[in-house]
Amino acid sequence: MTNTSENSRFLKACRREEVDATPVWFMRQAGRYMPEYRKLREKYTLLEMVAQPELAAEVTLQPIKAFKMDAAILFADILLPLKPMGVDFEFVKGKGPQVHNPVRTAADVAALKPVDTEASLGHVMEAIRILRGELTETPLIGFCGAPFTVASYMIEGGPSKDYRIAKSMMYNAPEVWHAFMEKLTTVLVNYLMAQIDAGAQAVQIFDSWVGALNGPDYEAFAMPYSKRILDAAHATGVPVIHFGVGANTILPLMKKAGGDVIGLDWRIPLDKGWDIVGHDRGVQGNLDPVTLFSTPELLEKRVKDILRRADNRPGHIFNVGHGILQHTPNENVKAVVEMVHEFSKR
Amino acid sequence: MTNTSENSRFLKACRREEVDATPVWFMRQAGRYMPEYRKLREKYTLLEMVAQPELAAEVTLQPIKAFKMDAAILFADILLPLKPMGVDFEFVKGKGPQVHNPVRTAADVAALKPVDTEASLGHVMEAIRILRGELTETPLIGFCGAPFTVASYMIEGGPSKDYRIAKSMMYNAPEVWHAFMEKLTTVLVNYLMAQIDAGAQAVQIFDSWVGALNGPDYEAFAMPYSKRILDAAHATGVPVIHFGVGANTILPLMKKAGGDVIGLDWRIPLDKGWDIVGHDRGVQGNLDPVTLFSTPELLEKRVKDILRRADNRPGHIFNVGHGILQHTPNENVKAVVEMVHEFSKR
Repeated sequence: MTNTSENSRFLKACRREEVDATPVWFMRQAGRYMPEYRKLREKYTLLEMVAQPELAAEVTLQPIKAFKMDAAILFADILLPLKPMGVDFEFVKGKGPQVHNPVRTAADVAALKPVDTEASLGHVMEAIRILRGELTETPLIGFCGAPFTVASYMIEGGPSKDYRIAKSMMYNAPEVWHAFMEKLTTVLVNYLMAQIDAGAQAVQIFDSWVGALNGPDYEAFAMPYSKRILDAAHATGVPVIHFGVGANTILPLMKKAGGDVIGLDWRIPLDKGWDIVGHDRGVQGNLDPVTLFSTPELLEKRVKDILRRADNRPGHIFNVGHGILQHTPNENVKAVVEMVHEFSKR
Repeated sequence: MTNTSENSRFLKACRREEVDATPVWFMRQAGRYMPEYRKLREKYTLLEMVAQPELAAEVTLQPIKAFKMDAAILFADILLPLKPMGVDFEFVKGKGPQVHNPVRTAADVAALKPVDTEASLGHVMEAIRILRGELTETPLIGFCGAPFTVASYMIEGGPSKDYRIAKSMMYNAPEVWHAFMEKLTTVLVNYLMAQIDAGAQAVQIFDSWVGALNGPDYEAFAMPYSKRILDAAHATGVPVIHFGVGANTILPLMKKAGGDVIGLDWRIPLDKGWDIVGHDRGVQGNLDPVTLFSTPELLEKRVKDILRRADNRPGHIFNVGHGILQHTPNENVKAVVEMVHEFSKR
């Protein structure tokens, strides 16, 4: 069957409308585990690829062509706004992003530069425009990191196990923390609005590390800033997906912050998670990405279990509970997409 | 006030008996953040210190002397049983434990050696005997890792973000996984029993990484082995603490596996966590260890909040929700211990 993208399964599910089958896409699907992508990566760094709109668009399309995903997610990175703010970083193999000048003091925050989105991140919007020209049936998702998650990299200087430096700033220099979050949120709002203006048909806010926070810290230090972004996106009319990992105890607060669709990781059965979120919102998830390294038999069992728990209620988007991993067997990705469509056919 | 150790606040709380004040100890308290310990570490590696019973006992006592903790936890490491099994590892600064010959195949599992606990880990039991001679009022906690957590290091070769290799073994070679867990569990049971025989007055099973698993995987691949250890420890009559992190969605299963006291991390309010666990068990937690880097004002607020939620119900042991971090300001540790005692006085 064919859809125009505005009438696609994915956007319908975002709006909690009836669909012909459950839509499926995979976080971080834009290429990284695919041979087509790995081949391009031999020639370019990730940041070089993101900086070239044609290349970013090409990578975005790879999984759509190969696996018939129900949505395309722009090939980009949540850390792209850092360099325009004056915070330099690089991706180091085996270590993840390494920030050269972490933000730790009031002076560091004061030194953060305002960002002219189109001037410094225009290549992202250009990739979106190219993609909207190419994608006729598949909707395009834009995204940004949530302020807490982006700030945690900027403060810690890279991935962290305990977020000691970031939380210490919250606790011991709350005025520095809040000044930082204000600035960062403004940059992120403008960046996400520009993506929507350029043609993103839905957006996702990635709060990947929010699971490190307890409820009171989330409410005081992260939620107001996430809410600003979620509200701004919501006001444009595009569906908004609000994603976290390991955040099952703060799902009610994440819902309160905003989002038409709330992400569920694999730690909670989908029906229980949806009960907590409330049926007035959609949910996205919740396959453990490591399951994609298993057998067709186990995958079938897990896919069926998730679909059974979703019970064809309008508003479920099938996805992994966290980004798809490198080295994921491509045949399993293909199999899961087919299974979701087949087993959920209305 | 004085207690004999058997009549101490800590053991009473483990048995859900009334106490004069809430007992408090800190996971990984045995020295690592203390200047006294750092000084010893200039001369010895962690494994050298553990191997010398006098030194291990000395480190165990450091926080008892400095902070009047209500329980002492043996200075040791959950990975100590690896070398006797033939799996070599070392602690590498900035990387954590690095296993030289990870266990990944049926042949690797077959090659694992049975362990003569007293011959190869007797130094741990010797440290316990020394400590029982020195500690008159403070009870001593022995411990081991839960099979899943220990196996995850042995399979992955070190810390992991996704447990891809460990979970892949569960999914794709379940017979190898189960054979491995059988062997490992036998070693861990014997090791823990030897600690109890030597004088450990309570034991804790550390399933630090169990939060990576969803319910079905925990139930099929981890829980039966944890249960074997928990049952064996329980049968001796000493109180058993069952600890996990990020495991809030599987708390009912962890309770089912066993434990007189269930650990709660900081992601769940203590009263909600205790409701899930059930009031027929004690709970231990649930301060975010990073809070110890904050101000006396915030610490007081958080300590009072936890105590208010515990509501003086018998069976609460105050602790951090995960191990205390290096560089933790010692004056804050002292302050929290004093606050817990003062604010919880019956």
